Amino acid sequence: MADAVVRTSKPSTSTRTPAGGAPTAAHSASEAAEARIDVAAVTDLLLGTWGDTRRAARQMIKDPAFWRVDGLSVDEHRERVLSQLHLLVENGASARAYPAEYGGEDNNGANIAGFEELVLADPSLQIKAGVQWGLFGAAIQQLGTKKHHDKWLKDVANMALPGAFAMTETGHGSDVAAVGTTATYDVDTEEFVIHTPFRGAWKDYLGNAAVHGRAATVFAQLITGGVNYGVHCFFMPIRDEDGAFLPGIGGEDDGVKGGLNGIDNGRLHFDQVRVPRENLLNRYGDVAADGTYSSAIASPGRRFFTMLGALVQGRISLDGAATTGAALALYIATTYANQRRQFDSGAGTPEVVLLDYGRHQRRLLPRLATVYAQAFAHDEFLKKFDGVFSGRTDTPDEREDLETLAAALKPLSTWNALDTIQECREACGGAGFLAENRLVGLHQDLDVYVTFEGDNNVLLQLVGKRLLSDYAKQFKGKDAAALARFAVGKTAGKVFHGAGLRQLGQAVADLGSTARSVELGLREDQQHELLADRVQQMVADVAMRLRPAAKLAPAEAAAVFNENQSDLIEAARAHAELLQWEAFTDAIHRAGDDSTLQVLTWLRDLFGLSLIEKHLAWYLMSGRLSAQRASAVSRYIGRLCNRLRPHAQDLVDAWGFEPEHVRAPIASGAEQARQDEAVAYMAALAASGEAPVSEKSLRKK
Amino acid sequence: MADAVVRTSKPSTSTRTPAGGAPTAAHSASEAAEARIDVAAVTDLLLGTWGDTRRAARQMIKDPAFWRVDGLSVDEHRERVLSQLHLLVENGASARAYPAEYGGEDNNGANIAGFEELVLADPSLQIKAGVQWGLFGAAIQQLGTKKHHDKWLKDVANMALPGAFAMTETGHGSDVAAVGTTATYDVDTEEFVIHTPFRGAWKDYLGNAAVHGRAATVFAQLITGGVNYGVHCFFMPIRDEDGAFLPGIGGEDDGVKGGLNGIDNGRLHFDQVRVPRENLLNRYGDVAADGTYSSAIASPGRRFFTMLGALVQGRISLDGAATTGAALALYIATTYANQRRQFDSGAGTPEVVLLDYGRHQRRLLPRLATVYAQAFAHDEFLKKFDGVFSGRTDTPDEREDLETLAAALKPLSTWNALDTIQECREACGGAGFLAENRLVGLHQDLDVYVTFEGDNNVLLQLVGKRLLSDYAKQFKGKDAAALARFAVGKTAGKVFHGAGLRQLGQAVADLGSTARSVELGLREDQQHELLADRVQQMVADVAMRLRPAAKLAPAEAAAVFNENQSDLIEAARAHAELLQWEAFTDAIHRAGDDSTLQVLTWLRDLFGLSLIEKHLAWYLMSGRLSAQRASAVSRYIGRLCNRLRPHAQDLVDAWGFEPEHVRAPIASGAEQARQDEAVAYMAALAASGEAPVSEKSLRKK
Repeated sequence: MADAVVRTSKPSTSTRTPAGGAPTAAHSASEAAEARIDVAAVTDLLLGTWGDTRRAARQMIKDPAFWRVDGLSVDEHRERVLSQLHLLVENGASARAYPAEYGGEDNNGANIAGFEELVLADPSLQIKAGVQWGLFGAAIQQLGTKKHHDKWLKDVANMALPGAFAMTETGHGSDVAAVGTTATYDVDTEEFVIHTPFRGAWKDYLGNAAVHGRAATVFAQLITGGVNYGVHCFFMPIRDEDGAFLPGIGGEDDGVKGGLNGIDNGRLHFDQVRVPRENLLNRYGDVAADGTYSSAIASPGRRFFTMLGALVQGRISLDGAATTGAALALYIATTYANQRRQFDSGAGTPEVVLLDYGRHQRRLLPRLATVYAQAFAHDEFLKKFDGVFSGRTDTPDEREDLETLAAALKPLSTWNALDTIQECREACGGAGFLAENRLVGLHQDLDVYVTFEGDNNVLLQLVGKRLLSDYAKQFKGKDAAALARFAVGKTAGKVFHGAGLRQLGQAVADLGSTARSVELGLREDQQHELLADRVQQMVADVAMRLRPAAKLAPAEAAAVFNENQSDLIEAARAHAELLQWEAFTDAIHRAGDDSTLQVLTWLRDLFGLSLIEKHLAWYLMSGRLSAQRASAVSRYIGRLCNRLRPHAQDLVDAWGFEPEHVRAPIASGAEQARQDEAVAYMAALAASGEAPVSEKSLRKK
Repeated sequence: MADAVVRTSKPSTSTRTPAGGAPTAAHSASEAAEARIDVAAVTDLLLGTWGDTRRAARQMIKDPAFWRVDGLSVDEHRERVLSQLHLLVENGASARAYPAEYGGEDNNGANIAGFEELVLADPSLQIKAGVQWGLFGAAIQQLGTKKHHDKWLKDVANMALPGAFAMTETGHGSDVAAVGTTATYDVDTEEFVIHTPFRGAWKDYLGNAAVHGRAATVFAQLITGGVNYGVHCFFMPIRDEDGAFLPGIGGEDDGVKGGLNGIDNGRLHFDQVRVPRENLLNRYGDVAADGTYSSAIASPGRRFFTMLGALVQGRISLDGAATTGAALALYIATTYANQRRQFDSGAGTPEVVLLDYGRHQRRLLPRLATVYAQAFAHDEFLKKFDGVFSGRTDTPDEREDLETLAAALKPLSTWNALDTIQECREACGGAGFLAENRLVGLHQDLDVYVTFEGDNNVLLQLVGKRLLSDYAKQFKGKDAAALARFAVGKTAGKVFHGAGLRQLGQAVADLGSTARSVELGLREDQQHELLADRVQQMVADVAMRLRPAAKLAPAEAAAVFNENQSDLIEAARAHAELLQWEAFTDAIHRAGDDSTLQVLTWLRDLFGLSLIEKHLAWYLMSGRLSAQRASAVSRYIGRLCNRLRPHAQDLVDAWGFEPEHVRAPIASGAEQARQDEAVAYMAALAASGEAPVSEKSLRKK
C-alpha cells in the first residue's frame, strides 16, 4: 500500500540531504525506503474539527502587524497589542462566539479555535483577546441576560468598550468563593454598593486593568437584606473617556511580568462604588427592586459552580494554545536538529547531525508524541464544549463532564508546553537562548498558563475529587461489576462523547500492525490496559485510605486527606493521560493510508510507552509489570525513537506552520546554508593542495 | 541535649504565628516542642570555607546600585551592569584570583566565592564579571605567560581593558576542537594572521563583544609551516578608543536574549587580522620567530584539554551561583508559603497556610534538601579547585578529577536551579509571575547556565566516558576486588579529597539517630549503598553493552555507542548525585549540636530518599529493592516532609539572606500583614453584630 501515500506538494522547509547527498538520518536502508506519512492528511488531522477557522486565523496572522517584536518596552508592547485587538475586529476575528446580532457568528468552537492560533503571532495577543472577549465579554454573555447583551456586547465585540475581568484578588486566587469584595444592595436607591474592605481584597492580576479597561465585570459577595448569597458578577464602569478612574475607584499597575508584557495587568479597588441594580449579571441569580433574592438554582454551591462553569472556555483555549506553542517549539528544535552538526563520530566521518544522536532523539521525539496526543485530545474537548455551549448537548451532566475535562487536560498540556519548550531551547544551545529564535519568549509567555485560569495543582485536585466521588457512587454495590463500570466511565468514549465502552485494539489488528507491536507484549490494548488500570487502582487506593476519615472530626479528616493529596493529584494526572492516549488512538484510525497509520501508530506507542516508563515504578510495585517486561520498556522506546527518526521532519512539518508563523532564523534553513558553506570551503581547500596537515597525522608518521 | 541549641539572634523575617497566635504548621505538639536548628551555625555550614568572602560580597551588594532593575531597556541594562563592574573594581572585588602585583590577592577560592554571591544582585553582573575576569582575564592569566600578565592583567583587573572571550563559534559550541577560525603564522612579518573562513566560524554569543569589549582572547587553529597544531588562544585588540572596530574586524549584536540582558553578547569575525607573534598566549604551546612550534605537552589531545582545563573556573562559579539562586527562590517561596493562606479545610476552621498542604510540602521540601546537598558539594568542589590552582595539589590526576567534577556537578546544579525556581514561581501563583518577586527573572537569567560553559548533556557524557575508562582500567583483573576498587574510587572521599574509602554510617549510629531511620531499612548506610551500587551497576552495564563495539568498524561502533548514550549520561548523573549525597552527609556531621544534626539528618534523608524515589524503577528492576520496601519510600518521604515542615523557615533562613538580597515583596511580610488585616476586619465585623449571615446557614435552619 506504499503507493497510496500522497506526498504534500507544500514546499518543505526541511532539508533531508546535506551537501554530500547522504541521508542525514542514521536509519537503515529499509527504513529509509519506507513510505512516509501523508503530511497534508496529518495536518488535517491535527488541525481538527475547526481546521478551516485555524487556517483562516493563520492566514490572517501572516501580517507582520500581528507579530511579537522582541525588545519593546512594556508600554510599547502594550500599545502594540491593543492595536492588534482592533486589527482582529477589522478582520472579523473578534467575537465568533457572540450572537450574530452583536457582531458574532454563534460559533463557540470556531471562536476558541481561532483565538488559539493567535499564540503563533504573540501569546500576549492571544491572552489579551481572551481577556476582552473570552472573560470580560463572556461574563456579560454567559452570566448576563438580554438587557446586558443589548447594552454592551456589541461594544465589547468591536473594542469600543475594553474591559477587565475582575475576579481574582490579591488574597484569593484559586478559592474564588472566598473573595472579600462585597456588593451590598441598597434598597433605597436600588443600587449595589461595591466595596473593597481590606488590602487582600484588591482585585489583582487583571488584564486591561492597568491602562486600557473602561469597565470591569466584578465578582463580589452579593449581600441583600443582611444575607450573603455568595459570589455574583456585576458590570462596573471604571474609567472615563480620558482614561481616568471614576470616583471611588483606584488601582495600581502590576508592572513588569515574567512574560505576556503586551498585556496591562493591574489591580483595582473600590470605595463604596454604586452601580444600578440592573448591573448585576443576573442569569443565575437576581435581586428584585425590593431586595428579594431569587435564583433558579436553589443550592448556593451548585449555583456558584454553574456560574464558574459558564467561563470554562478560558481553560479550553489555554489547552489548545499551549499545544500549538509546544508544537512550534518542536518544529523549531527538530528542524534545527536535522541541519545542525556537532562532533564527528571518529574515523574521519563528517560531523553528526544532532537528531542522529540517541540522546537528542530521546529528548525530542517522546515530547513530539505527547504534543500529538494533546492536539487530538484537545479537538475532542473542543467538540464537547461546542456541543454544550451551542445548546445541543447542554445538560448538567455534560457541563460537569466538560469542567472535569478542562480541569484534567489544561494542567497536563500547559505543564508539558513549558517542559517541551524548555527542552527545545536547551536542544538548540546558545542559539536557543536568543530571543530571535522564539523559544525563550514562548517559555516566558506561556509560563503563567500553568497557574492562571485555575492553578494546575488545584485543578487536578478537583479532578481527583470527582474521580473519588464517581468511584464512591459506582462502588456502592461493592462488587467487581461496579468496579468495571467505574473503569469504563473513565475512558474517552464516555468522557468525551458520553457514550459507552470504546472498542480497542481491533482496528490495528485488522490492519496487520499487530505482529510488530506484539514483540514486547506492549501493543495497543496492553498499553490501554496498563494506563486504565492505573487510574482505577490509584483511585481505589486513595479511596480506601480516605475511608476512615468519614468517622473522624473535620480537622483530623482534613489531615488524612492532606496525607493523600499528592496521590490523589497523581491519580487525576493518570486519568488525563489516559484520555490523551485514547484520543490519540482514535485519531490515528482516521489517518487514511497504511503508511501514515503505521508511523502514527509508532508515535502513539512512543507516547504510551513513555507514560508507562514515567510510572514504571508504580507498575512494578503493583505487580502489573514484571522486572523483565519493565526493563523492555526503555529499550522499546529507544527502538521507537530510531524508527521515528526518519519521519521526525515530516511529523513536525505536519503542523502546517509557514515561515511567517515560525520566524526563527535557526529553523529557516540558515543553519543548513552555513553547514554547506563550511563543507564546500573545506573541500575547496583540500582540492587546492594548500590545506595544512594536522599535527596528529604528522605524529602518526 | 536540646538545651545545647543556640538560637540565632538575627531578627527572623519569618512569622511563625499568625494573628490568632496558633502555630501555622499542622505539626504535632511534640514536634513543635522539639529543639530547632541552630540557624547561625547552619549559615556557617552553608557559606562554607570562604564564608568571610561571601559575607563581604553580600555586604557590598546591599548597595542598591548593584541591583537588577526590572523593565530597563537592553541598552540601559547593559550600561548599568558595565557601571557595576567599575563599582566592583572600586570595592576591590574584581580580581582576587590574580597575583598581587596586578591588583589581586592570589586567592582562587575566594575569588570564585565572591563572584558567585553577585547572582543575588543581578545574574547579569555575575556573568559579565565572569566574562571579564574569569574568562577573558583568566585566559590571559592561565594560558599566557609573564609578558602577557605584565602587559594586560592590571588593565583587565581595573576595567581599563574590557574584553571578550572569543571561543564559541556559530558553528561550533561544545566541540571547541573543531572551531573554524585560523591563526596562520607569517614568518616574514612574525605575525599571526587571524581569519574567519566562513559564516559558521564567526565567533558568537560572546559577552562584551557587541559593545564594550576593546580586546578579545581569540581561540583559533594555530597553523605554522603548513601544520595545524590545534586550537590555541591569541590576544587581539578589537576596538579603538571610540568603540569602533579596528580594521579587518566586524561583528553583530546578538540582540535580545532570554535573560542576562545586562550583557552585550555579540558576534565577531576577522578578515586576515594580523597580531604580533607575542600575542599567542604561549603557556602550553609557542611558536618561535622562525615558525617552529614547541610545547611541553607532546600529545595534541592532552595539550588541548590542559588548556581547556585551565578555564574550569567558569563551570565552578555556575555551580555555586545556580545553588545560591535556587536557594533564594526557595527562601522566597517558603516564606510566602508560611504566610499565605488559601481554602479552609472545612468546618469553619481558618484558611490553611500553603505550607501545611501535603502537596505544597512535597513541592518545596525535597528541592530544599537538594539545594543543601548542592551547597555542600560545591564547597568541596571549590576547595579542590583552590588546591589545584594554588599549586598545593596541582597534579595531572588532580586536574583531571577537578574537570570531571566540574562536568558532573555543574549540570545537576544548573538544571536543578531551573526546576526549583520554576516550582517556586508556580508555588507563588500569580504573584510569582510578577517581576518584582524575582522568581521569573531568576529563571530567565539562569536558563542559559544549563547550556553555556559546556552543554549539560555533553558534560555528563564526558563524565560517563571517564567512568567507563576508569572502569576499564580497574576491571582488567576481572575480579570482585577490582570491582570494589572501582566503586571506592567513585566516592566523595576519593573524588573530592583524593583520599581512600570514607567511613559511613558510624557517626550517625553513635549519635543515636539510628533507631529512627532504621524504621524502613533506609538509613544512612543503606541510602549510600543504594546510590553507590547504582553508579557501579550502570557503568558496568553500559561497559558490557559497549564491549562488542571494540571489534566493529568505526561507524558501527559509533552506532552501538549511540544506543547507549542516554544510559551513559544517566550513569554520570547517578555518580554526581552520589557525590552530592556524600558531601551532604559529611557536612551534617560538622553540625555541632544534636538538634541541628537531627534536623539536617532528616533533610539529608529526604534528599537521599528523593533520589531513590526518582530512580525507583531501576532499583526494582535490578532487584535491589523489593516491591514492599520500594512502596515504603514514598510514604517515608511524606513523613520526612511532615517532620521537616516546622523547620522549613529555619532551613531557608539559614541561607542568611537579608532583605537587600531578597527584595521580593511577597517574602517581605506584606502577605502576613494582609492576612492579619483581613482577619482583624472579619473579627471586628462579627463583633459589630452587622455581619451578613450566609445563605447556606439560613438554608440549614
